[in-house]
Amino acid sequence: MKALQYRTIGAAPEVVEIETPEPGPGQVRLRVTAAGACHSDAFVMSLPEEAYVYGLPLTLGHEGAGVVDKLGDGVKGVEVGTSVAVYGPWGCGHCYQCAQGRENYCARAGELGIAPPGLGSPGAMAEYMIVDDPRHLVPLGDLDPVANVSLTDAGLTPYHAIKASLPKLVPGSVAVAIGAGGLGHVGIQILRAVTSATVVALDVNEEKLALATEVGAHHAFLSDDGAVDEVRRLSGGRGAIAVLDFVGIQPTMDLGSKMLAVGGDHVMVGVGSGSLPAGFLDRPWESSVRAPYWGYRSELFEVLDLARAGVISVETEVFSLDDAPKAYEKLHAGTLRGRAVVVP
Amino acid sequence: MKALQYRTIGAAPEVVEIETPEPGPGQVRLRVTAAGACHSDAFVMSLPEEAYVYGLPLTLGHEGAGVVDKLGDGVKGVEVGTSVAVYGPWGCGHCYQCAQGRENYCARAGELGIAPPGLGSPGAMAEYMIVDDPRHLVPLGDLDPVANVSLTDAGLTPYHAIKASLPKLVPGSVAVAIGAGGLGHVGIQILRAVTSATVVALDVNEEKLALATEVGAHHAFLSDDGAVDEVRRLSGGRGAIAVLDFVGIQPTMDLGSKMLAVGGDHVMVGVGSGSLPAGFLDRPWESSVRAPYWGYRSELFEVLDLARAGVISVETEVFSLDDAPKAYEKLHAGTLRGRAVVVP
Amino acid sequence: MKALQYRTIGAAPEVVEIETPEPGPGQVRLRVTAAGACHSDAFVMSLPEEAYVYGLPLTLGHEGAGVVDKLGDGVKGVEVGTSVAVYGPWGCGHCYQCAQGRENYCARAGELGIAPPGLGSPGAMAEYMIVDDPRHLVPLGDLDPVANVSLTDAGLTPYHAIKASLPKLVPGSVAVAIGAGGLGHVGIQILRAVTSATVVALDVNEEKLALATEVGAHHAFLSDDGAVDEVRRLSGGRGAIAVLDFVGIQPTMDLGSKMLAVGGDHVMVGVGSGSLPAGFLDRPWESSVRAPYWGYRSELFEVLDLARAGVISVETEVFSLDDAPKAYEKLHAGTLRGRAVVVP
Amino acid sequence: MKALQYRTIGAAPEVVEIETPEPGPGQVRLRVTAAGACHSDAFVMSLPEEAYVYGLPLTLGHEGAGVVDKLGDGVKGVEVGTSVAVYGPWGCGHCYQCAQGRENYCARAGELGIAPPGLGSPGAMAEYMIVDDPRHLVPLGDLDPVANVSLTDAGLTPYHAIKASLPKLVPGSVAVAIGAGGLGHVGIQILRAVTSATVVALDVNEEKLALATEVGAHHAFLSDDGAVDEVRRLSGGRGAIAVLDFVGIQPTMDLGSKMLAVGGDHVMVGVGSGSLPAGFLDRPWESSVRAPYWGYRSELFEVLDLARAGVISVETEVFSLDDAPKAYEKLHAGTLRGRAVVVP
Repeated sequence: MKALQYRTIGAAPEVVEIETPEPGPGQVRLRVTAAGACHSDAFVMSLPEEAYVYGLPLTLGHEGAGVVDKLGDGVKGVEVGTSVAVYGPWGCGHCYQCAQGRENYCARAGELGIAPPGLGSPGAMAEYMIVDDPRHLVPLGDLDPVANVSLTDAGLTPYHAIKASLPKLVPGSVAVAIGAGGLGHVGIQILRAVTSATVVALDVNEEKLALATEVGAHHAFLSDDGAVDEVRRLSGGRGAIAVLDFVGIQPTMDLGSKMLAVGGDHVMVGVGSGSLPAGFLDRPWESSVRAPYWGYRSELFEVLDLARAGVISVETEVFSLDDAPKAYEKLHAGTLRGRAVVVP
Repeated sequence: MKALQYRTIGAAPEVVEIETPEPGPGQVRLRVTAAGACHSDAFVMSLPEEAYVYGLPLTLGHEGAGVVDKLGDGVKGVEVGTSVAVYGPWGCGHCYQCAQGRENYCARAGELGIAPPGLGSPGAMAEYMIVDDPRHLVPLGDLDPVANVSLTDAGLTPYHAIKASLPKLVPGSVAVAIGAGGLGHVGIQILRAVTSATVVALDVNEEKLALATEVGAHHAFLSDDGAVDEVRRLSGGRGAIAVLDFVGIQPTMDLGSKMLAVGGDHVMVGVGSGSLPAGFLDRPWESSVRAPYWGYRSELFEVLDLARAGVISVETEVFSLDDAPKAYEKLHAGTLRGRAVVVP
Repeated sequence: MKALQYRTIGAAPEVVEIETPEPGPGQVRLRVTAAGACHSDAFVMSLPEEAYVYGLPLTLGHEGAGVVDKLGDGVKGVEVGTSVAVYGPWGCGHCYQCAQGRENYCARAGELGIAPPGLGSPGAMAEYMIVDDPRHLVPLGDLDPVANVSLTDAGLTPYHAIKASLPKLVPGSVAVAIGAGGLGHVGIQILRAVTSATVVALDVNEEKLALATEVGAHHAFLSDDGAVDEVRRLSGGRGAIAVLDFVGIQPTMDLGSKMLAVGGDHVMVGVGSGSLPAGFLDRPWESSVRAPYWGYRSELFEVLDLARAGVISVETEVFSLDDAPKAYEKLHAGTLRGRAVVVP
Repeated sequence: MKALQYRTIGAAPEVVEIETPEPGPGQVRLRVTAAGACHSDAFVMSLPEEAYVYGLPLTLGHEGAGVVDKLGDGVKGVEVGTSVAVYGPWGCGHCYQCAQGRENYCARAGELGIAPPGLGSPGAMAEYMIVDDPRHLVPLGDLDPVANVSLTDAGLTPYHAIKASLPKLVPGSVAVAIGAGGLGHVGIQILRAVTSATVVALDVNEEKLALATEVGAHHAFLSDDGAVDEVRRLSGGRGAIAVLDFVGIQPTMDLGSKMLAVGGDHVMVGVGSGSLPAGFLDRPWESSVRAPYWGYRSELFEVLDLARAGVISVETEVFSLDDAPKAYEKLHAGTLRGRAVVVP
């Protein structure tokens, strides 16, 4: 079969012909219907040899969807022909975290050599992929895999980040989304769908602000000190009860800090290298800073149900598997609008 | 001043001229801008002498709004001229419940002889009213008092009922509202505003079903066994994770029971005399039955913020104070669409 | 191998010789170290033919512990020789409920023919047992399997019932446990371990009240109206914020109703046939009635951690597998103190 | 009456004779039964003139207890002769935060010139004190005011800090308390009373470690890297799910960071000047850093209920009002064991 593989540190990924894999006992083979490209793939391929831990060759693609194609021995409760999305942050399935479906925080994945598809295990950028356990499949039903595959990361990650702050996002509160790109534009839709908070989007790019408004932000401002004033004004002086930073670089984190409310949540969703001083005298009382990672298994069901209800969708640009390297070129160049999806 | 008073057990309320009250220390006098009529007023006036405990004469009106007119000695933090809504379920302010703003469940109100305006204390159906403490005032800002006064009960009561079930109202869940009348049509809007659940309205009246759809219900069905099938279908067989019964009579409670999901909340919001058997073998696993009363102090802020955001509103019919008895006649006759509001 | 089987409707269970089972792909075989007998086994064996749905012959034992003995194909993350407890309420593992470890409420178990060990699948009252998936194993570490096997039901069930009420069990609150038998005496210990509530035990049996006090109840009273007065007094008039009914018959449910606080939780833990009227006018405001079933997967970890911390333990009477029928005789006769444990 | 006042910037506080205050409308006068001295008083008196904002002369004492002595006009629901504790973080009583009893985060206190007793308003270190509103009084009942007055800050502050982390403090989890001094030794007792977590105390002082063990810490270690290893070991490698830093200086914050678990809460309770870098790559996934301030009104009820249940108590050293300056000397010198209490 064809697969997109990262084969040489520092080189671009290549489309290669490899053997079609067979599912072992307890495993499931999917015929891939869609695979999403993500900034974290680019991050992985930017790592120098000494920091690269994912093995080579690496079939890319941690956002995957497919049709159940073949069941390994002992697999029950799943039927060949079912259209599914793949829950990516695979864990051991047995530990205390996994027992709650919090496989993104599995206590034993490292020790047991378990890695997400496309980030250690062979990923979805191929004609077929192996999923290690049927519990990592969530039925898509009538949802279009191409339109929705990106939700497995670009939907699940902001959803998880927002969900922990839900009790604070009461009517009358203000939520700020910084960065209206791949994750951010989905995050804005989620905020609108699951809260009644006033949603404010901030970005340095006017086009992204237009997208933010289009997908539902109540207000969209350029990321500057004027935005701080606007957020204070819109919140009756209190500030934002949640700042979701989908970028995570120093300027966005500093900006978010200036508008956070007493008791507010400052959530780092984007993988950036920014960092904030957090002490007794640095931040609003009882505000918190946290950086979650991906999401829970049950939350992927909830994200797909939002798509099913028609209240969230992803801007996508579609590529064939042969053209998948171009998707990464455009990702690197920042010329994608929304997310790139590869269809084998 | 003029006031609408219930003066004789069993008789209709009358518009009378009484002395304009003076605020005592710690109290606030409002010039009333709007007062809502409610089914519970009718219930109170239907009680026989031996069951009637509210004192006579009783100035009606537990839904009130006004402009701060005069401050009693020692009142701070409130300014004359401010437009406010009145939080009705007055408590002692000191006990453990009140310390959380849960004055609707004050442990000492009975013992101390504290009663809500219109339900023991002189109410809002008058040119002026006394509010016992400024903490019972919530600023209206630019909100129209006439359009919004009903939210102090008909908004707060469903909001409170819904809020306790919010963690279960995840994407993909189904919430059922039984009864699309005064409380129900606001409850439907609240469900839409603060959750992403599929909202199903049930009623015996086609006109009310039309109203339900108009205010946002995803689906509206006649209250019969076909509705049970529809709810099962819409929820993928699981049933409704929340059934909000805004009627509370035996047929609505029985109907709700047939569609409740495992772990679901069956909430009696309407003051009816229905009753359900609840035991280990009678109901879906881990489902609960509860009957809340009115709402918390902070929740009235949240309800008004929903109105401010333009996502909830009340159908109202407006009456002058002189015509207030007619409002109760229409209420009794069931010929009101939405809520009756009296403007002195 | 030897096994205790229910073979004939209405007859006593028998010790028989059957073939030692082999683990299929994805399954795990345990050498059983302990199996608990439970009232629900007796309930199952009391069912008439038309109501009996568990298949024959049925190897009993839904409380199980063992040592991992043999791994089926494809099993990872578990090692032969590990001492484990078995999580009993097996679900499909894939659905929304299972994705949160809430397998006791699996949406698909019925449809897929999945049943707990001892309640449809072959149970733990045998020398060896098959566990369908390693996720149903929780490591025991140094915990004695014989002393702790009963916790898989008699610990997990009350723990789950209590956990949902934890936010209400604040300092100063009163929790009432009705019935200080198998489940109740563990429930009392759990209440003491995870809350600072005042714990009141009620029973009709003086010996059970003595046990209740011994295991930590602050107060123990005979189940009568005097108990209602005591609970009111101990709670400053408010009543019990949680009533855990470990019996579930009409008299205990009626008794619990008389002492419930506003906002209280009335929880049916014991499998009885009692039933309460629940409507707007029947119960304290915002109180709830619910009947949970068994517990979540992660909660079994937490229960075993309580045992590890030395704060809960089970009264047990130990039987050999050959004597297992006697265990059920004593259970039936009500002459067990605590739980019966069978050691193959 | 006599009062302890801070009269000159930089000087020691003095016992002076001032006029006994009269309660205005809505206010309550207490005859003080006990007043606690706190590190924050010392902090206030260490401020240079340009940073000092509390007014002069300042009657000290933000931890107060007394007997209701005289009621201002309009005060209801409180009786002369009642023994009470004073809730210190006074707010406006009307805003959204105050409507939930979260007066410590009142949105309007600054604007309205409202300040806690002893921190702007005249405090409890006097024979009599004025409390601005009866809602700031919590009945002591039979609790000894001298033994318990410190709980109004040294109990409420750690209780509030711990309460927000309760859902994470499940059985099997590890909580670390850094600093076993005035707040810390109460915090340790609270952790034991309201959770079943393993409680680890860290301090640089062997005597404080002995106190920690005495009041219930499961383990007590010197604050060094060995402690990090111990916490990892005790938690099966996961780390501490909550680190409560009762000191808040850089070394304690750095130490806490090394032992925090994925998803853990790092809570700054002590007023120190330490600060942590918090970004996507700096901290365990989904861990949070927060710094709460004092506590909620209802939480003071809960803290006093813990004292009533006999599960928390404060180490105190008692001084007469004439000797109150000595209490601050010993506080400054660090020679107090526990908290200083002044009895007028």
